[in-house]
Amino acid sequence: MDTDPRFDMLKAACPTRQVIDRIADKWTLLAVVALEASGTLRFSELKRSIEGISQKMLTQTLRTLERDGMVRREVEATVPVTVRYSLTPLGLSLAHAVGALREWSYANMDAIEAARDDYVPPTGPPTPTAVPAA
Amino acid sequence: MDTDPRFDMLKAACPTRQVIDRIADKWTLLAVVALEASGTLRFSELKRSIEGISQKMLTQTLRTLERDGMVRREVEATVPVTVRYSLTPLGLSLAHAVGALREWSYANMDAIEAARDDYVPPTGPPTPTAVPAA
Repeated sequence: MDTDPRFDMLKAACPTRQVIDRIADKWTLLAVVALEASGTLRFSELKRSIEGISQKMLTQTLRTLERDGMVRREVEATVPVTVRYSLTPLGLSLAHAVGALREWSYANMDAIEAARDDYVPPTGPPTPTAVPAA
Repeated sequence: MDTDPRFDMLKAACPTRQVIDRIADKWTLLAVVALEASGTLRFSELKRSIEGISQKMLTQTLRTLERDGMVRREVEATVPVTVRYSLTPLGLSLAHAVGALREWSYANMDAIEAARDDYVPPTGPPTPTAVPAA
């Protein structure tokens, strides 16, 4: 069972887990989607396009994406300086993989909404204490 | 440009954004991957299989997935009670969409590692102050 490659990413030391640790974050995915949809954006344009993101979170998200080779940061020597962000080919390939999640969200949002409306919280003891130390 | 469906999920009020807000989280994705790979697991088995997850985070993650119709929670009246978790058909379809991200991580972990090794932090002023209020 442990030869199934899906198990690799459950291990904290696995390189793919370390990739997931960085990209499986809503602000990262939304920044990638925004740049894929628009091509090139300035910081202020990116901030406006991703509703709800703080300046600090966007700065941090872009820096990580740049460090990981997914975002290109170009500085133009205007006064004041102009900084533009775009996806690298690696970032664009991530955007395509994120597309599957986006399409899944579109296709299933009604089913999720219906499940939430029908949900009845469990009445038993809370999960952890209800489980034997197997 | 705003008719591109990719822009919808950037809006805080869009239902697909609310789906992304919930699923684009590493513990959620790892729990879905663990259940897809194993079929049915008890709480303690899930906790062991997802390295690094805390009991509190796993409890919260499973509760949200259950409420959203992606995880089935079955209680067997043993002493002590046995609780088992598995994916619903909706959760399984999410697992398949997550598969694209997992495969991307496998295919690109070396490229990301190389980018990180080559990364030189920007020497100019920090991004937000360097950007004109366009």
